[in-house]
Amino acid sequence: MQMYDLINKKKNRGALSKEEIEFIVKGYTSGEIPDYQMSAFLMAVCLNGMNYEETLNLTVAMASSGDVLDLSAIHGTKVDKHSTGGVGDKTSLVLSPMVAALGVPVAKMSGRGLGHTGGTIDKLESFPGFSTSLTGGKFISNVNRIKLAIAGQTANLAPADKKIYALRDVTATVDNISLIASSIMSKKLASGSDVIVLDVKTGSGAFMKSYEDSLALAGEMVRIGTMAGKTTYAVITDMNQPLGRAVGNNLEVIEAINTLDGRGPSDLLEVSLTLASYMLIGAGRAESMAEARQLLEGTIKDKSALNKLAEFVSAQGGDSSPVYDTGLFKKADIIEDVPSLSDGYVSYIHTDEIGMVSLILGGGRQTKDSIIDLSVGIQIHKKLGDAVKKGEPIATLHANDSGKLKEARQRLYNAYLISNEKPAQHPIIYGVVTDKDVLA
Amino acid sequence: MQMYDLINKKKNRGALSKEEIEFIVKGYTSGEIPDYQMSAFLMAVCLNGMNYEETLNLTVAMASSGDVLDLSAIHGTKVDKHSTGGVGDKTSLVLSPMVAALGVPVAKMSGRGLGHTGGTIDKLESFPGFSTSLTGGKFISNVNRIKLAIAGQTANLAPADKKIYALRDVTATVDNISLIASSIMSKKLASGSDVIVLDVKTGSGAFMKSYEDSLALAGEMVRIGTMAGKTTYAVITDMNQPLGRAVGNNLEVIEAINTLDGRGPSDLLEVSLTLASYMLIGAGRAESMAEARQLLEGTIKDKSALNKLAEFVSAQGGDSSPVYDTGLFKKADIIEDVPSLSDGYVSYIHTDEIGMVSLILGGGRQTKDSIIDLSVGIQIHKKLGDAVKKGEPIATLHANDSGKLKEARQRLYNAYLISNEKPAQHPIIYGVVTDKDVLA
Repeated sequence: MQMYDLINKKKNRGALSKEEIEFIVKGYTSGEIPDYQMSAFLMAVCLNGMNYEETLNLTVAMASSGDVLDLSAIHGTKVDKHSTGGVGDKTSLVLSPMVAALGVPVAKMSGRGLGHTGGTIDKLESFPGFSTSLTGGKFISNVNRIKLAIAGQTANLAPADKKIYALRDVTATVDNISLIASSIMSKKLASGSDVIVLDVKTGSGAFMKSYEDSLALAGEMVRIGTMAGKTTYAVITDMNQPLGRAVGNNLEVIEAINTLDGRGPSDLLEVSLTLASYMLIGAGRAESMAEARQLLEGTIKDKSALNKLAEFVSAQGGDSSPVYDTGLFKKADIIEDVPSLSDGYVSYIHTDEIGMVSLILGGGRQTKDSIIDLSVGIQIHKKLGDAVKKGEPIATLHANDSGKLKEARQRLYNAYLISNEKPAQHPIIYGVVTDKDVLA
Repeated sequence: MQMYDLINKKKNRGALSKEEIEFIVKGYTSGEIPDYQMSAFLMAVCLNGMNYEETLNLTVAMASSGDVLDLSAIHGTKVDKHSTGGVGDKTSLVLSPMVAALGVPVAKMSGRGLGHTGGTIDKLESFPGFSTSLTGGKFISNVNRIKLAIAGQTANLAPADKKIYALRDVTATVDNISLIASSIMSKKLASGSDVIVLDVKTGSGAFMKSYEDSLALAGEMVRIGTMAGKTTYAVITDMNQPLGRAVGNNLEVIEAINTLDGRGPSDLLEVSLTLASYMLIGAGRAESMAEARQLLEGTIKDKSALNKLAEFVSAQGGDSSPVYDTGLFKKADIIEDVPSLSDGYVSYIHTDEIGMVSLILGGGRQTKDSIIDLSVGIQIHKKLGDAVKKGEPIATLHANDSGKLKEARQRLYNAYLISNEKPAQHPIIYGVVTDKDVLA
């Protein structure tokens, strides 16, 4: 088999066999196939597409390219959740303790990655002493004992995906649905959970800006998960504005704690309850969405989810006292309101730009080696459709550097469109895709 | 400007500006743009195409990437001819002395390249002592004195094309008309001639197998040449069988000499006269095809072309006596007929396979460092439509190795289809494309 012929086949709209796709993934991961052949192939895939079978085979080949976690020593049906990424997205911090409090094991691998804030494991490091470097044995025993553990992603999880993604990132071959879906799902398949709940964001702050693209991606991922033998759901949720009112690491952890304490913003609560409901249904812990929701709301009312968060933080070496006193989290030096420049309604939010504000303040990683400032971020006061008066604060910035604050303030103004027209409301939840939808 | 954005633009079917194309060509040639970005870009070009303006800009950018020859010290209108490549194609050896004998300066740069036989300069090395390593001064003074010089292509002629071609060759991005046309024309533009006559081969032994593709390539090249200010003609000629009856280096030189001596095969003579006629018309040496043809036929009758060949060989240090006694050329050790296995007509020739026979015998280069055996090759006795009886020789092989001979004989049988049906005749000349055709 020659890579040249496989590039040529895809260029001529041919479909590759399982063996051919395995040849490409193995050859590229081992370095036998050079970057320049792989990038030509990826461009041909972007322009000519892959069918369902090719996409599944690509995903499985990438999932098998490194460690495949064996979670069989964990009792019960293991559930995991993955988001395609958004601004202010702290649902993992909210739903993981809720689901664990109901006895369903959550064994989560999480990356750090680049972005406008850190990943879940960066945010958890807001708790002094918290560590995600768990041995395999400790990870499994923690899940068995308290039903929740979150570990940093092993370097050898789907290494083929890591290498291919890095190449796509510099060759303008990112935006193909088969490549996107297989990249996400390869890591999920290698992570060993039985149930996968996907949060596919849609809107101005999402990777997929249009509902149609989000729906297509959701369908492709559910198809892959189902064909690979996993119970898979994809919930399409709104990302036309930040989720909740906090963007930034400590600020998001505080908002998650408040939500578990019954004082959270309604959109964050709604998304978290919906995703968690599918996790419970997938695990067989609830029969219906209504039952699941009632169980989950119970974990807030009786504080069992909040207590579970504290128990989990302690179990991974962290000081859990901030769970019960969020004033203990480190604050930024400069906290400054950003007043509206005019009267009107918030009629559009460039959500990606809000993410950039957080990045500029130092809340995210621009390169792999960036150090995240956990205390900076944005508190959002005005959301889509809110009436606003000139001089009234639309947001509050938390900064540790006055130069960065100045730039962040300008970007924040750019992100908000205030006009006389009250915009139509977006739904918080657009819908769900299940195995029945893709196999019909 | 970022290469990423330009790849993305082409992926999304955008048209690149002159500045953007220059950025790509310069960046890739200098090594600032890595192979993996260039190959993704080239695949996007293969699948989404380039418009006329982009193709012209690419050609000019590649032509300007290295030395651009200054032939202004040569008196008169300089003419050049280029073939897209075929089996048994020795027209350069025939037409160059004819045109020069009529006082029109032929200043030719020729490559060695890979292929089933050597290039023109390899073939000329059949003359003992002949050298194509001329200084710039010697090259120009030779053309001024005897109207003909052929030099080896400088290493720095269109280096961008050389680098891009090498990448296309390993990434399945060869067969795009804009890339093919710009590759050929960049070298022609850099070579400094005023008139360019292109021989676009069509058929089973040509790069372009179909007439439609050949016509499209001819049009694209004439358009580029014309837009770049060169008088350009493209003649589409048949390559459904070897041109003439000789394939191999010495054998082809002998056939060229015989043709200049009035004893050549009619198809080779016809193609040479047609191409040479356009060279004369382009140079203003003849007003019409009829006049040009008469002048050229005169150079055969009065032996002035044959004498010009001898003069040219001597001027570049070669022993010209074989021009007048072809028995002096080195012969192969084994000369063996290949008899037909059945009665019938030659109804199809896999012309590429005849090329492979020459390559197997050692007549061409498989890698850059291969050494060419000048004495091996094939004499064709039966051409398309010829009647043949079982046992009658269809060809004679000239070999220096009995193992290679055995393999060559098998390939030769594979190349010939003998059947009861007499095939339709192909024209020798299909037509010509001039500036009037592409600018209409």
